[in-house]
Amino acid sequence: MTLHLNLFLHDTGHHEASWRLPESEPLAHIDIAYHQRIARIAEEARFDSVFLADSPVLWGKPSRRPSGKIEPTILLTAIAAVTTRIGLIATASTTYNEPFNLARRFSSLDHVSGGRAGWNIVTTAGDDAAQNFGLDAQPAHLTRYDRAAEFVEVSKKLWDSWDDDAIIADKTQGVHARDDRVHTIGHVGPHFKVRGPLNVPRSPQGYPLLVQAGSSEDGRDFAARHAEAVFTAQQTLQDAIAFYRDVKRRAIEFGRDPNEVKILPGLVPVIGSTEEEAHALDAELERLIVPEHAARQLATLLRVDHLELDEELPADLPEEAAIEGAKSRYTLIVELGRRERLTVRQLIGRLGGGRGHKTFAGTALQVADTIEEWHRAGAADGFNIMPAVLPSGLERFADEVLPILRQRGLFRTEYTGRTLREHYGLPRPANQFALPV
Amino acid sequence: MTLHLNLFLHDTGHHEASWRLPESEPLAHIDIAYHQRIARIAEEARFDSVFLADSPVLWGKPSRRPSGKIEPTILLTAIAAVTTRIGLIATASTTYNEPFNLARRFSSLDHVSGGRAGWNIVTTAGDDAAQNFGLDAQPAHLTRYDRAAEFVEVSKKLWDSWDDDAIIADKTQGVHARDDRVHTIGHVGPHFKVRGPLNVPRSPQGYPLLVQAGSSEDGRDFAARHAEAVFTAQQTLQDAIAFYRDVKRRAIEFGRDPNEVKILPGLVPVIGSTEEEAHALDAELERLIVPEHAARQLATLLRVDHLELDEELPADLPEEAAIEGAKSRYTLIVELGRRERLTVRQLIGRLGGGRGHKTFAGTALQVADTIEEWHRAGAADGFNIMPAVLPSGLERFADEVLPILRQRGLFRTEYTGRTLREHYGLPRPANQFALPV
Ligand SMILES: Cc1cc2nc3c(=O)[nH]c(=O)nc-3n(C[C@H](O)[C@H](O)[C@H](O)COP(=O)(O)O)c2cc1C
Ligand SMILES: Cc1cc2nc3c(=O)[nH]c(=O)nc-3n(C[C@H](O)[C@H](O)[C@H](O)COP(=O)(O)O)c2cc1C
Repeated sequence: MTLHLNLFLHDTGHHEASWRLPESEPLAHIDIAYHQRIARIAEEARFDSVFLADSPVLWGKPSRRPSGKIEPTILLTAIAAVTTRIGLIATASTTYNEPFNLARRFSSLDHVSGGRAGWNIVTTAGDDAAQNFGLDAQPAHLTRYDRAAEFVEVSKKLWDSWDDDAIIADKTQGVHARDDRVHTIGHVGPHFKVRGPLNVPRSPQGYPLLVQAGSSEDGRDFAARHAEAVFTAQQTLQDAIAFYRDVKRRAIEFGRDPNEVKILPGLVPVIGSTEEEAHALDAELERLIVPEHAARQLATLLRVDHLELDEELPADLPEEAAIEGAKSRYTLIVELGRRERLTVRQLIGRLGGGRGHKTFAGTALQVADTIEEWHRAGAADGFNIMPAVLPSGLERFADEVLPILRQRGLFRTEYTGRTLREHYGLPRPANQFALPV
Repeated sequence: MTLHLNLFLHDTGHHEASWRLPESEPLAHIDIAYHQRIARIAEEARFDSVFLADSPVLWGKPSRRPSGKIEPTILLTAIAAVTTRIGLIATASTTYNEPFNLARRFSSLDHVSGGRAGWNIVTTAGDDAAQNFGLDAQPAHLTRYDRAAEFVEVSKKLWDSWDDDAIIADKTQGVHARDDRVHTIGHVGPHFKVRGPLNVPRSPQGYPLLVQAGSSEDGRDFAARHAEAVFTAQQTLQDAIAFYRDVKRRAIEFGRDPNEVKILPGLVPVIGSTEEEAHALDAELERLIVPEHAARQLATLLRVDHLELDEELPADLPEEAAIEGAKSRYTLIVELGRRERLTVRQLIGRLGGGRGHKTFAGTALQVADTIEEWHRAGAADGFNIMPAVLPSGLERFADEVLPILRQRGLFRTEYTGRTLREHYGLPRPANQFALPV
């Protein structure tokens, strides 16, 4: 029984005000050396992987926090150059890319890193992203997931278009690769027509680890069908168990081994020597939020013109079914506000840390206990660790929480594998086109 | 008067049979450490830049030579991580990409490398590439160049969508960047509709060095209008002078300073201690070509069913105007064959080295003399160096030819700038949207 830990990279930290702390580097978000440093700390700590979120649009107002990001496959390549073991998971959109180009980029990242690439497959919510690609509004939620499914199908065909044994490099005969082991794919479907083969030989992992984070009905089905790891935002243990069971059940229905779909809820640890110290750090961060900025962004997300800071959420918010964007995040936030009867100001404070992910402020022992509790209760195969402040929150987690988890036999002391799939205990996929050897 | 030198990377070398030499690493094309090693040699030698060609399609038969390539912006990022000065020029297609995604990738490469990114803008000839993107045949030549022009226009707007002074990172006030210095671009044109802003702040060079290699009428106009450096394949000094004058004249007509368009013909040096030794190496490489493979590929390029190895080119080849693919390369090859009355076998030998670029076999002194001659005659602001065999051909060029050029004051001893634009003596572009400071 071993946990998997992914480090969710996010410049100066996941708390939206983290960049305002004295320790924080104001240009971290565009500083490669900074990212390389953080990834090395995570590798030293034996995390399974680091992860970068992404969208092809400028997120949020530039005034509010560091905005604009280096494209993830490029940033992770720069990290690959200074690390040897840790997995590298990049987000990329199936709605605003072409399968040939993206399949090639991930195959390239897998080659460059010696088999450490992962792809967080997203369908990209929001009209603003659509408007960077010739559209006025985003395609409907179901249409996006439909395209995503075919996108992954085409990508797998492309990744399999070279047999593993295609290259023979026979200098004497002058034959570099066997032409009959490199296949056109001739894909024709409702969204894509792609001839192939891919212009990169099959990569160390066969193809990147497939990760997904959709939480709506469409999203869960997609995850259960295609994903090997699932990121999710869960506020309560009870919800997390229900989500875990639901995705594993769906995976079984699709004929998959449920152990080959790892579920990783997000966790924002805020660690102090005492509980008081942890809460003080949390309060200090909350104090640094500019509430008017945050309220404006929350209003946009909830599709209302205005929110009063010291009142609860309005009663007449739209139903999830009417949301074509990120459905499940919408519901999570509304339910959190209603369940705990939070004012908008309080809700913003809670979201400022983890944007819907579980924030847990306490001692290292308390954090370790919570991790173990969730894991044993069947809510998590591992966690998506989202330090409120980077690098200090990561260092503290590595130095204080991980030793406790190791003592309990819950986390590795040393890497046993070389590839990202090996870290997660997942098999290298077979090639659907391979000829008999 | 100083030359600019670009190293055209090409796994084991530009000669198509180079991979068959005993010294060559058979998996060089997918080996990052190998590419990093070569780039370091070029940086030691103070080259302006390294360059990777590319197309979103598998080029050639896998049997014939190493095929499939790591995506260039990823490979160059891996090189950026182990170098500090040398420029990094990646090829990318305007026909099979979206401006938002590509502008972002190049901005990212410029950030990652501290201002060393360049983009070789290509329109991608060939129906086979089109068939990886839902089309049956490639768009017409003029349509591709038309889209390319608008693609570059949109890209420049996106790169300029952040003012250089947008980020203030004011921790006290909680203002990271000034919202009024980050602009939507609202581009609407025949090919693209893009809202912006880009989701990456303006990069060290403002935007990557723009490189182009089109040689047809459409291509030269495009280069004269947009390119800061031009790659070209020229077989004779006379043709090279005519090309040089023609592009500079067109640049002037577009209102540009002709010194801000650097012309770099390709040169394949095959260096020996004596002329005989150089020719022997050339002959050894030619002997390793499998002529039937090469003849088949040449037939495809020339749009004929079959070519007889020991006969001259057929008399009834199509006119350039009928070629929708790479027009100028077509004409160059046909003219070379006809001018020198080469048999197909001989023509293949000549093309095997440089695929249309000038191969020059001789001593280091002779190579240096040719470089100086072309430069003084007004045929070249520098050269695109394409070693027949890598890394040995590069090492020999660096160790034996460069000292001669330095002695003659024709090539730098030390880098004087930090960015790619500085190496080429080009200014950092102003921002079209910037507000007064
Ligand atoms: C940890 C985590 C990371 C996510 N990262 C991204 C991301 O980088 N880009 C993105 O567009 N969506 C991201 N999402 C959103 C999901 O992909 C998904 O769209 C969202 O959970 C809503 O679910 P739905 O798409 O099924 O409605 C992320 C979600 C989670 C839980
Ligand atoms: C040195 C050099 C490198 C080139 N690299 C590429 C490349 O990487 N990808 C590509 O599609 N075309 C490449 N080309 C082809 C040109 O972009 C152009 O298509 C070709 O010269 C034909 O000219 P035209 O497009 O004006 O007809 C290259 C040409 C030269 C001279």
